Order: sequence, then C-alpha cells, then structure tokens
Amino acid sequence: MENVAILGSTGSIGVSSLKVVDSLSERFKIVGLSAGRNLDLLKQQVFKYKPEVVSVEREEEARKLKAELGGKYAPKILCGQDGAEEVSRYPKNDIIISAITGINGLRPTLAAVSSGKRIALANKEAMVAAGSLVQRTAAESGAEIIPVDSEHSGVFQCLAKENSRNVKKVILTASGGPFFRSTREEMKEKTPEEALNHPRWEMGKKVTIDSATLMNKGLELIEARWLFDLKPDQLDILVHPQSVVHSLVELRDGSVLAQLSPTDMKIPIQYALTYPDRNEGLLPSLDLSKIRALEFYNVDMNKFSLVKLARYALEEEGSVSIALNAGNEVVVEAFLKKQVRFTDIFTILEELIGKHEKSKVNSLEDIFAVDREARRMTRNLLNNRI
Amino acid sequence: MENVAILGSTGSIGVSSLKVVDSLSERFKIVGLSAGRNLDLLKQQVFKYKPEVVSVEREEEARKLKAELGGKYAPKILCGQDGAEEVSRYPKNDIIISAITGINGLRPTLAAVSSGKRIALANKEAMVAAGSLVQRTAAESGAEIIPVDSEHSGVFQCLAKENSRNVKKVILTASGGPFFRSTREEMKEKTPEEALNHPRWEMGKKVTIDSATLMNKGLELIEARWLFDLKPDQLDILVHPQSVVHSLVELRDGSVLAQLSPTDMKIPIQYALTYPDRNEGLLPSLDLSKIRALEFYNVDMNKFSLVKLARYALEEEGSVSIALNAGNEVVVEAFLKKQVRFTDIFTILEELIGKHEKSKVNSLEDIFAVDREARRMTRNLLNNRI
Repeated sequence: MENVAILGSTGSIGVSSLKVVDSLSERFKIVGLSAGRNLDLLKQQVFKYKPEVVSVEREEEARKLKAELGGKYAPKILCGQDGAEEVSRYPKNDIIISAITGINGLRPTLAAVSSGKRIALANKEAMVAAGSLVQRTAAESGAEIIPVDSEHSGVFQCLAKENSRNVKKVILTASGGPFFRSTREEMKEKTPEEALNHPRWEMGKKVTIDSATLMNKGLELIEARWLFDLKPDQLDILVHPQSVVHSLVELRDGSVLAQLSPTDMKIPIQYALTYPDRNEGLLPSLDLSKIRALEFYNVDMNKFSLVKLARYALEEEGSVSIALNAGNEVVVEAFLKKQVRFTDIFTILEELIGKHEKSKVNSLEDIFAVDREARRMTRNLLNNRI
Repeated sequence: MENVAILGSTGSIGVSSLKVVDSLSERFKIVGLSAGRNLDLLKQQVFKYKPEVVSVEREEEARKLKAELGGKYAPKILCGQDGAEEVSRYPKNDIIISAITGINGLRPTLAAVSSGKRIALANKEAMVAAGSLVQRTAAESGAEIIPVDSEHSGVFQCLAKENSRNVKKVILTASGGPFFRSTREEMKEKTPEEALNHPRWEMGKKVTIDSATLMNKGLELIEARWLFDLKPDQLDILVHPQSVVHSLVELRDGSVLAQLSPTDMKIPIQYALTYPDRNEGLLPSLDLSKIRALEFYNVDMNKFSLVKLARYALEEEGSVSIALNAGNEVVVEAFLKKQVRFTDIFTILEELIGKHEKSKVNSLEDIFAVDREARRMTRNLLNNRI
C-alpha cells in the first residue's frame, strides 16, 4: 500500500483525487487530509477514510471537528498553515497531492518537496511564485514532482524518454474559455455567473475565472518553465476549443508528440499517483470520430492581454511572476464578489505590473514580501475603482 | 560514423533516405546500395556515394554498370535477389534501410534481420507475409527493427517507455486517399492517373494505389500487429484527411498519445537512423494554427472493403495475409497497366480470398509457395475479366 496525503481535500482536485483513490483502494490509502473551511465535506471525508492526521484552517473548526469525532477514532487534528505543513510532512506519507489553490499552497507544497517524497502537484501558484526555490529544494531532497495540471501531465507523458536537448518547443492548449468568441467590448459586461460557465472543464471558481481571462494559461506557461526547465521562447499556447489535446511537444527533428484525453482531472491525477505504471481508467475511451474535428487557433494577445503580461513575467523571472499571481488572486476575488467588472481584471493587473518594482527573490521571505506588497497595491487600485 | 546500406535506393523511400544521409553526413556513410532497373539513377547514386557494394536486378545491368564505372573506383557489383541479400548482409553495415516494395523485399529484409543489425523497415510486405518469422529471427539475432512507415514510426515514438501491458489500443490514421468522398459507383471509372494523384503524400506508385484503395492501411494493420505484438482487436483505423496525426496510442488509463509531423517521409526515416537520439530536421515546423482543423472519421468498410479483408487476414494469420498481399501486388500492377478497372481490385481480391485455402506457414518456403499460388489464382481471375 502507498500512503497518500491530500492538501486541499475539499476542493475540486481534492474531491477528484479521493475518487481515484476509491477506485484504486487496493493500492492507495489516505493517511492525511488538509482542508480550508468546508467542514461539512471534510467531516464526511474524515469519517470515510479515517486518516491519521487532519488539518483545517482555523482553531475553532479544529475544536469542532474533534468534538464531533468523539472518542472511538482520534486522528491528530491540526489547524492553520502550520497544520497543513504538518500533514504535508507526515512521515508515513508516500505521495502528497498538493491541491490547495493560490499562494496559500506554497508553504505546504515546499514542506512536501523538502520531505523527498512524490508530490502530485496541482498547486500551480507554488511553481509560479517559487519555481526556482521548489526545484532547488527537490534537487536536494530527491523529491519527485509529477504535474497534475492536465497540460503539464500531457507534456510529462510526451517527454517520456526524450532527451531534453531534443525538445524544441512545448505547446500548452487553452480551451479559450467561455469568451473566446466575444470581443473585449462584450467581455466588459460579463458576470461571474457567465465567467464560471466554462465550456469544457469543471473546476474550482478561481481557476475557472482564470480560464475565462486566459490568465490560467499564462500561469501555466510559467509553471511549465520550471517543471520542465525550458526557456521562455520554447513555450507557446494554442487555443483548442475542444480541449482534447492537452499539450504538444515539438522535437528537434520536426516530430510532434501530443497527449489527448477526456476533459476529466481524474486522468492526470491517477497518472501522477500510478506513474510510471498505469491503472485501468474510470472513463470511457476518447472517440475522435464522434468529436470529428480538433481545431487550433493562435491566441489573440490584444484581447487576452494577461497572456502578454505572463510572457513578460516569464522573461523577467524573479518578482514579476509573484506580483502578477498575487494581484490576480486579489482581483479575481473582487470580481467574484462583483466589486469590479470582468475587464477590470485585465486593466488592474496591467496597471499593477506597470507600477511593480522588479527585485531579486532568493528566499521564501522575499517571495512573501513581494506577494504582500503586490496585494496591497492591487487593493489600492481596486479601491480607486470601487 | 555509422555505415548504412539501402535496399531499394532508387525508389521513393530510397531517394528520401539519401537526402537524410546527405544532411547528416558527419554521422552516416553509405556502404551499400541495391536497386532494381533504374540504372540511370543508380549510377548517379554510385558515383556520388561511392558505396563498397552495389546490387542491381539483372546481370546485364550489373555488367553495364561495371563497364561505366571504369577502373579507378571498383565496388563489388552484384545482381538479383542473391545480390540484394549480399548487400543486406554486408559485414560493415550498421544500419540497413529496407525499402524494396513488395514481397521482393522479404529475402533481403530477412537477411538483414538475421545479421543482428538495426533495420529501418519500410518494406511492410515482409511483415505482412512473414511477421512471425521476421520477429523470431530478430529475437535470435538481436536485430533492432525500427519502423519507417510514418504511422508505425508514430506508434513507436508514442510507446516510448510505456509498458506494453498498459497499451489498450493502437490507431493508425489514413488520409482516405483521393477517393475518400467518392461513392463506390464513382470509383469504378477512376483511372490510374486519378488514383496516383494522392492528396497528401508523395510516394511510389504501388503504395499510392494501395492508399487509394485503403489496402495500404489494411497491410499496415497487419504490419503493426507484428511490429508491436498486438492482438487484432487492439488495432484500429481512423480516416484523417489532413494526415498530420499519423497514429494514436490509447493507454489503459484513458490517456492517448499521438505523433504528428509534416507529411514527409524524411522525418520517420531520419528517426529510424538516429533513434533514440534525434537530429535537427530538414522541414519547417508544423503550424497547427494554419492547418486549423484536424478531422477524424470512421472508415466506411463497405466502400473500402479491402480493410475488411485485411482485418480477416489479421484474425486468421498464417496464409491469408500472404495471399492477400500477393494478389494485391498482381492486381495493382494490372490496374496500372489499365487491364482492369479500379473497383476490380476490390472484387478480384474478394474472390481470391473467398477461394483461398488457409494453411499454416512455418518457413520461408511455405510463404513463397502460398505467394506463388495466390499470384497464379489472381492472374486467372484477371484473365477472366480482361
């Protein structure tokens, strides 16, 4: 049996991960769960999987959970960032699924990486903000980072035994989101409900908005740069509305390898758990004759200008990625609360990056300092609009 | 330097192979060439590459070539099947490109395989007629068979480090040929000129007609069965008019890997030479945003009934594949000579396989006996029509 801990167990990836573990229960066992404030769902998960260690966001919820569990089964119950980190570092873990959304996932992800285990990485923000640090830590600890993002899982599978010097280009596909065919003018009035209505993927709210702005693809470019040790000009995006091809790897000799699968995160999650082996999947086979046509378009960088910002961050490394990610978290939250319009996400982040003073980042402290400052600036920019 | 011999050097694959060798002349050197009756082209090749051993089809041409070369450079000049086999077995060979079309390629291919070297295999008929024997011989000699057919090269690349028990299905794509949108009735009157006008690939005449009837894809199914040790129900075909995706491998967990490249045989030829490494390619990168849409259709098995025959041969193994291949060679030649109509290729082969008496084949002698008998029967069937 391999012991699995899930960071972010009540989120979309967390819930899918548990379904995968259910279907492969002869091979995987849950030993740790960490969640935020969705105590109801966490309670059900704790009762079902009986993990040895559990963490919630606040002390108050930790107390509640302890009381409800009664005496007969008493896992270690923790709270806060320290609690999530302890779940992450729990010595019995063989695999840690890192699925907390946003910069909040960084510390627990780093804790997992420094433990030298396998990390199934769904928290892309850790790589965006701290890619260099995460990879340095993995090199020291011997941790194995297997991507869970469908695009990066695809790249990982295509690279297989290719020598990295034979890789010419990595192309991530984007569905284009719900507004692929809207003009920038039309996008102005789009509501959170419309933006959350993603044509292909069912995901958490934050990443669904990021898919509508295409910021998600920008963050994924930065993530891919660190995961696969690529140069900015080796990375590209194609809009592919069918979301069947997740990524393509162009090799030196002109051959291109691509990974395709149904749009369900259970596939890359399962692969990250079973790699290098594969187990029977949970979904029906892809039938290309039914899908009929796979289309590919270049990204309209003027309309989806956040991709341009992300490419700039990709070139600049250091603090720009951190600021862009932090600002995006703040402004997406404001959009979901209907405090700003959809296109304000673009203009506020453009303004933020315009004002951001680049700096070198060497430590986790540096990263969080840049993150805090960018959040402060974004809130100011928001307050000017509201 | 790696020494390369080319069997079938004046054919389409042979000529492309020499272009690849030209571009990688710091790594590969031609030591042997074997050709049929295109003495003019062979002479140019011999003068340019100065191979140590050369073979032509007939003694008369061997004498002519010897005379024209004069005294200053005197390669070993041979002729006939024995000559091709000697080129194939030449001790200095590191890689043998087997690119003779039809069953004529079988003996030289087997000679190459038994020498334990790397075989870049473009002669699909060797695998169709003698797959079991070829693989047995390779297992004994340690020969490494790398496919050159674009579809099989794609499968080979996708399989990379996948464990074969994780392979669910292998799908070869077919362009559909020039008559994909014609009815069977319309196909009746198609001339050799129309059938030779392939929409995507520039190839030799025999394989171009096979592409128009889709027999090529049928033969490739059988080839794939032996190359990758698959069961008949693990093999499938999709019509893909753009011919950008050459093959797809569906894995156990629902993930699908695909190989894409421009439609130029230089890519799979080069890969077969450089594998597992890759060298810089000769062609511009694939631009999917320009191609725009990749379409996929099921094969209309009633219209392209040779695929049905090939699937039957795939199930039956043994003599049926040999007979089907032999009959096809005879009837395609008759069609190219305008002795029969395009759709006669279908009906004559259906009749042939209906009359064919299945038998076990264990040796090269068995194979050639079945081949001869099928040719005789096909000629009879042809004579009844002409």
